[in-house]
Amino acid sequence: MATESTAETADEPTTGCTDDLAYDVFARDCPSREALKHVTDRWGSLTLGALLDGTFRFNELRRRVSGVSEKMLAQTLHALERDGLVHREAQQTNPPRVDYALTPLGHQVAGQLQMLIALVEDRMPEVLRARERYDARHAAR
Amino acid sequence: MATESTAETADEPTTGCTDDLAYDVFARDCPSREALKHVTDRWGSLTLGALLDGTFRFNELRRRVSGVSEKMLAQTLHALERDGLVHREAQQTNPPRVDYALTPLGHQVAGQLQMLIALVEDRMPEVLRARERYDARHAAR
Repeated sequence: MATESTAETADEPTTGCTDDLAYDVFARDCPSREALKHVTDRWGSLTLGALLDGTFRFNELRRRVSGVSEKMLAQTLHALERDGLVHREAQQTNPPRVDYALTPLGHQVAGQLQMLIALVEDRMPEVLRARERYDARHAAR
Repeated sequence: MATESTAETADEPTTGCTDDLAYDVFARDCPSREALKHVTDRWGSLTLGALLDGTFRFNELRRRVSGVSEKMLAQTLHALERDGLVHREAQQTNPPRVDYALTPLGHQVAGQLQMLIALVEDRMPEVLRARERYDARHAAR
């Protein structure tokens, strides 16, 4: 997860893209590349997918995103919150309770991501057959 | 979607998903999680995006995927080829020439990924404003 922040300000554009209207993940220093990474990395993508099902507390999310550590989930949620995709709501209860939900932008991004996930899941038999062919070809050498 | 799968049978020891019809990236050991990772990790996503534009040789791809090392691009292409998303064509020329192109499945997956990339690029001004608000809030503490 990217903890390295390049701190863009209005005064010092470090976009690496030509201007505000042309963000380009193919440009090495474009901040869109980092945002895409937050969305698509292992825990970001699974966290966004889980939140498509509703609002969850931290430990509920941890159970849904099978295999994630407490530290990685916390980092993932911070990055998604900072990018405006996840809303963190601290309830004034005792003990305090924190809920995580998608923002409207997060919902759009997660929905688009979910279509990619569904496609990959759907085509897994084809992917596994390709792997078998590849491995057989390379073992034969 | 977010069902934790525990089904492991002798026939399908490594899937972690219930059966061929239910691949689930939320299951820790499901191979779909690895396939999704190949598609969405930093270099996988950019390589698939670049190949949407056509067939390229290794060094052409390296220039397009700005910032990728030779080693990482080679690893990325191997993983995508093994998953059946990229086709590697060695030409019988002297010196030998190797072309990389998307398979039909790779084209579908890359197209879906490209929609996600376009959405993120498109909404970057909103993401950057969210980051500014987040940083201001946390600096004020």
